Amino acid sequence: MDQLSPYCEVYSRAIEILGRRWTGAILRALMAGRSRFNDIAHTVPGLSDRLLSERLKELEAEGLVVRTVTPCTPVRVEYSLTEAGNALVPVVWSVAKWAEAWLPVRESRTA
Amino acid sequence: MDQLSPYCEVYSRAIEILGRRWTGAILRALMAGRSRFNDIAHTVPGLSDRLLSERLKELEAEGLVVRTVTPCTPVRVEYSLTEAGNALVPVVWSVAKWAEAWLPVRESRTA
Repeated sequence: MDQLSPYCEVYSRAIEILGRRWTGAILRALMAGRSRFNDIAHTVPGLSDRLLSERLKELEAEGLVVRTVTPCTPVRVEYSLTEAGNALVPVVWSVAKWAEAWLPVRESRTA
Repeated sequence: MDQLSPYCEVYSRAIEILGRRWTGAILRALMAGRSRFNDIAHTVPGLSDRLLSERLKELEAEGLVVRTVTPCTPVRVEYSLTEAGNALVPVVWSVAKWAEAWLPVRESRTA
């Protein structure tokens, strides 16, 4: 139980990672496999290129995403999940499933 | 797949709930069952009474926690998880397990 005590620092850091705006969405976009920048951008409407780039760098620094450069013409840059990133995907899904089941959908502001 | 599209508002709200400092710890403290205020406070070291009270009110407003008052002398006030709160517990655990497995523990600042 020591390993999973109610308050622990690593838990807070995990929530911080998931809580950063767009991070969950980006991880979920990447679970389909190795993706190019534009593919991720298209899967996450509303996310600017600048923010996507920033988030991908953070995820790379945290060891959750790997950036692969293939030296062809034009150079192909792709992103994929590491083992830790892959392990985070079911966590993202458990949050999403709980949210869909239990949180009321608010009226659209544009309606 | 529409129900679990990569970006959705309810997902963000769930993360927001889990991301609020101490909320995860309080939910995990409550999973043992109905608890008094002081029991929760003791289970979550470092959490002030003021903040615990604030968080419990938020969780009550979100339908995750129920406050029960038993009219005895002195009055007994207890908190327990609702069905939605209970459903959130495995989500909290999945985050905690991922964190324990994949996030490096930082050196203690007091060491």
